[in-house]
Amino acid sequence: MDIEKANAKATERMIEAHPVLVGLGKAKDVIPGMRDNLLMHAGPPITWERASGPMRGALTGALIFEGKAKDPAEAEALITSGEIELEPCHHHQSVGPMAGVTSPSMTVYIIENRKHGNFAYCNLNEGYGKVLRYGAYSEDVLKRLRWLDGVMGPVLADSVQAADGIDIKALLSEALHMGDEGHNRNKAGSILFLKALAPYIAKSAPNSDIASDILRAIGDNALAVLNPVMAACKAIADAGHGVEGSTIVTAMARNGTDFGIRVSGLGERWFTGPVGTPKGLYFPGFTAEDSSGDIGDSTITETAGIGGFAMAGAPAIVTFVSGTPKDAINTTMEMYEITYAEHKYFTMPPLDFRGTPTGIDVRKVVEKNITPRINTGIAHKDAGVGQVGAGLVRPPMSIFEEAVIAFAEQYGL
Amino acid sequence: MDIEKANAKATERMIEAHPVLVGLGKAKDVIPGMRDNLLMHAGPPITWERASGPMRGALTGALIFEGKAKDPAEAEALITSGEIELEPCHHHQSVGPMAGVTSPSMTVYIIENRKHGNFAYCNLNEGYGKVLRYGAYSEDVLKRLRWLDGVMGPVLADSVQAADGIDIKALLSEALHMGDEGHNRNKAGSILFLKALAPYIAKSAPNSDIASDILRAIGDNALAVLNPVMAACKAIADAGHGVEGSTIVTAMARNGTDFGIRVSGLGERWFTGPVGTPKGLYFPGFTAEDSSGDIGDSTITETAGIGGFAMAGAPAIVTFVSGTPKDAINTTMEMYEITYAEHKYFTMPPLDFRGTPTGIDVRKVVEKNITPRINTGIAHKDAGVGQVGAGLVRPPMSIFEEAVIAFAEQYGL
Repeated sequence: MDIEKANAKATERMIEAHPVLVGLGKAKDVIPGMRDNLLMHAGPPITWERASGPMRGALTGALIFEGKAKDPAEAEALITSGEIELEPCHHHQSVGPMAGVTSPSMTVYIIENRKHGNFAYCNLNEGYGKVLRYGAYSEDVLKRLRWLDGVMGPVLADSVQAADGIDIKALLSEALHMGDEGHNRNKAGSILFLKALAPYIAKSAPNSDIASDILRAIGDNALAVLNPVMAACKAIADAGHGVEGSTIVTAMARNGTDFGIRVSGLGERWFTGPVGTPKGLYFPGFTAEDSSGDIGDSTITETAGIGGFAMAGAPAIVTFVSGTPKDAINTTMEMYEITYAEHKYFTMPPLDFRGTPTGIDVRKVVEKNITPRINTGIAHKDAGVGQVGAGLVRPPMSIFEEAVIAFAEQYGL
Repeated sequence: MDIEKANAKATERMIEAHPVLVGLGKAKDVIPGMRDNLLMHAGPPITWERASGPMRGALTGALIFEGKAKDPAEAEALITSGEIELEPCHHHQSVGPMAGVTSPSMTVYIIENRKHGNFAYCNLNEGYGKVLRYGAYSEDVLKRLRWLDGVMGPVLADSVQAADGIDIKALLSEALHMGDEGHNRNKAGSILFLKALAPYIAKSAPNSDIASDILRAIGDNALAVLNPVMAACKAIADAGHGVEGSTIVTAMARNGTDFGIRVSGLGERWFTGPVGTPKGLYFPGFTAEDSSGDIGDSTITETAGIGGFAMAGAPAIVTFVSGTPKDAINTTMEMYEITYAEHKYFTMPPLDFRGTPTGIDVRKVVEKNITPRINTGIAHKDAGVGQVGAGLVRPPMSIFEEAVIAFAEQYGL
């Protein structure tokens, strides 16, 4: 068996994937397998019993949003009884930031990989502060979700259609030349997204006040484009998945309790281990004591060759996640050690337009004893609080070791 | 006399200046000294006889726009007879890109330096291709100017007022962390400008079609913010002008024939010499043979400590002006040799957030034999064509030598 050839194929498919935002729709109408009694969540599978504070908070909020529960106790009863089922976003061609909880009536972005034909989905970004994805579920959080779904969602759907889609691959390539790394820093990407949609939003909105509100909501949210970018990265990673004999990682995701990875040549199996706690900068009034364990599907960005892996092109991010511009360069240089390819289209001007390190090889991770570096937001450990900082984190080495052993067993090496 | 102290004062005033876009208005209504028979132009004073092709083209276009001439011959007659007068933008607290021709009924941005109270002005950016500022004056150029003045101008005026002004200093600080250098690369700044204005444009426009057109015009023009940035730099440079005993350059400007500088401690006098020809990348179908001499007031950006001086923070610009990211770093490093200060608010992440080199000292230019580096667009040498490329250029050393001699004479050194 030629592992190198398999990895070349998997990474080439990832690099040549062409994700385009083609529409928005209700999760239950567009996501395969979404159903009335399902909540999707970030990371590998999880139960209520093992779920972290922010994950429980987000599950509670989603059930209140759906009109199925009034409080955490009712949410817990519905979920532990099995009346409401929990499944990873990743099991439904989807991803979600932080808790990643997505319920049937939420609006989601629809990404089509125009090169290979697969689709991927992600919910809408709520902005900063107390938000569902960080486990907050107060009335203002729910009000915001209702506005996103009832007001912004339909206008964005019409706008994306009128624009004949938004090329997220091209947007990312450009944003990486504007100081973004595409995960924790999406300042440029979000206003490129605004730029692409604004002429259509003005026409699609029912009136100028709503147009103004939507333009402000996107423009003021430097993470507005994170969610379509995550869905784009999911479409990219899925294009590289399922290549016989490939040791390339095609999913990295955390549910707040477990960090899980999937490998291209190892089917749907998750390799999981305990999440770490991010190291970084905390917002005023918070410390590492307040931090939840690592959480979210946004590590799909690093899986696709951006995020922490592209930090060399985003030196200003260190003001947010800690460190110096030299650390940012070092992070990218280190990731070349554990990846198969250099990206053709995602390049970094400060490294003389070198392509980002793309396609994590579980064998290299183990051989070199270097785990992937991830940029991340930090959630409060308790339900209902929200974001408390941002920083850097790594997955546990054990899951890569297990993947290497499983690979050897499956392929009889 | 303490030249160091004078230069410290001049540069501190420049660095602490706080330019805010406070409105738009017709040139004749808002610019001091603007009058019915005046055309302002880029660079130091020039006559029709000595004017370059693009300058003559722009003067002709402006007179057609004003309804005063029908063709270049009529324009020439009006100007050479003295019926229409020519004066530099710089003589009226104004600046203009490339030919910089500004006529009485054109709409201009109004910048207030909220720290020191002075004002500065600049016309609206027309976008790319065949445009007046590059000497084109065909019917589509004039139609575009009429749309800018009649449709976009009033909406932007209302929007800026509703936004209570746009802080251009803050916008520039942010754009410099997003790969812009503020002169030839204003990609990030222009969409930050869009982001700031979009919610107000949606409400100020008479209907959603016009709102959409304006949002597209700004969003699709990666130089949209250049003109308010130039006016902001003019307000900054003027704040440093007129400091007794200072050898800091407070204006660098080209009219296509002459390159001129002014010095803080030497009053309104211009020191002029022949312009160079930019070296850079040409658009398909054009070569250095087609190039006009260096032209435009946009060198006010380098005067204020950005543009070519901030290239280290904008490595992706080399795809437009030629060179490598290392050249971009070297350019900035070289400019530290001839400047007095490092900017407090304009910083470059790739240089560990070091401040941009600010405040060109004519003495250092002469002593070190290093002239300022300027990023620039390249105009076709003939009237009516337009932009043919972009590149790098330097002023003639002679004008700095003359300024040093004049300084010695004036101050009896």
